[in-house]
Amino acid sequence: MPQNISIVENILNANDRLAEENFARIEAAGVFSINIIASPGAGKTSLIEKTLPLLKGKLRVAAVDGDIATSIDTDRAAAAGAAAAVQINTGGDCHLDAVMLRGALDQLDLTQFDLLIVENVGNLVCPANFKLGTHKTVLVASVPEGDDKPYKYPGTYRGVDALVVNKIDLLPYVDFRMEYFTQGVQVLNPNVTTFPLSCRTGEGLEAWVEWLIEHSKK
Amino acid sequence: MPQNISIVENILNANDRLAEENFARIEAAGVFSINIIASPGAGKTSLIEKTLPLLKGKLRVAAVDGDIATSIDTDRAAAAGAAAAVQINTGGDCHLDAVMLRGALDQLDLTQFDLLIVENVGNLVCPANFKLGTHKTVLVASVPEGDDKPYKYPGTYRGVDALVVNKIDLLPYVDFRMEYFTQGVQVLNPNVTTFPLSCRTGEGLEAWVEWLIEHSKK
Repeated sequence: MPQNISIVENILNANDRLAEENFARIEAAGVFSINIIASPGAGKTSLIEKTLPLLKGKLRVAAVDGDIATSIDTDRAAAAGAAAAVQINTGGDCHLDAVMLRGALDQLDLTQFDLLIVENVGNLVCPANFKLGTHKTVLVASVPEGDDKPYKYPGTYRGVDALVVNKIDLLPYVDFRMEYFTQGVQVLNPNVTTFPLSCRTGEGLEAWVEWLIEHSKK
Repeated sequence: MPQNISIVENILNANDRLAEENFARIEAAGVFSINIIASPGAGKTSLIEKTLPLLKGKLRVAAVDGDIATSIDTDRAAAAGAAAAVQINTGGDCHLDAVMLRGALDQLDLTQFDLLIVENVGNLVCPANFKLGTHKTVLVASVPEGDDKPYKYPGTYRGVDALVVNKIDLLPYVDFRMEYFTQGVQVLNPNVTTFPLSCRTGEGLEAWVEWLIEHSKK
């Protein structure tokens, strides 16, 4: 079906061009931006919720939340202290794309912020194929998902700039071999910055917050 | 872009027709079949691994495992006692479709089995849109994913016939309100058969196994 394939390629190319436009716009406003991807329930929203209070008085943050339905995440981000929170309902789509982010950027005065946090749809596969135009892509893994995830989702693990390993407080209660997990990550993405942490207990959050501050102040 | 939309519709329609063919074929062989969908790490493979020994001497089981890469899951199913295990590598695709299942069925003599277990790709969004032609779709949710998942992935929760709630051994260690979760499920899918269980401790597995045996012996 060469016709279908060429249409898919056109869509991805068009998305990449729009992602470049988004990037130029974010960059021109002097904002540092991240695209957070993860499986459903790994803790994207919890991470944002726990991070925002720690950035209070240090960075002005805008949050963009992608979801198939509901505005639960945006409500949580706003309650946690985001200076602005924009909801994207994808209407069933399994990922954000550059067009959707452009629509969200249209609703923000970017010059008012230091950091833009984009929370993608909960999905470990599809979001990896659609660039949005952010500076960094952050993958949130979580301990109860299991230590084999880098081996099973290599494309996603390969393409990210930072890796949060959430829910380390559950390590005593699940069969998760950190060494096996780390080995898989190392093979795919040797230079990825990794933050083991627990959104529940707060352990390890400082290093993650420092990383955000450091990049936002450049 | 009406041309793209019509192509997407054609793909889905073609998939549905092939799913009907798969169903007729499975049905003619007298096999009961399930399509297991879940987020990455919810415990699809563990569930199959724990279920197979309990079916030993009662049902002859064939397992079909869909994965983006690796054959870890097929190896685990074979080791756990599947009479036959077929791997589908989707080559990056985020879901199984009816064409892929047809390819797997071609490798099986269906008359030799009572139960066909299809393990879909770890993804809570896309597999829900692609019928395979199995009798039932089973969703594996897991406690550490959080109690808001029915609210955030309504399309997936609405479309399933049975719901396994895995990792109940972690209930004391996470913030999971079973009532809130169940309420969400009830609204979307009031008649869904639910199995709270733990693949780690074995608690609750009997009811699930009974359900499989009951349906396979029809």
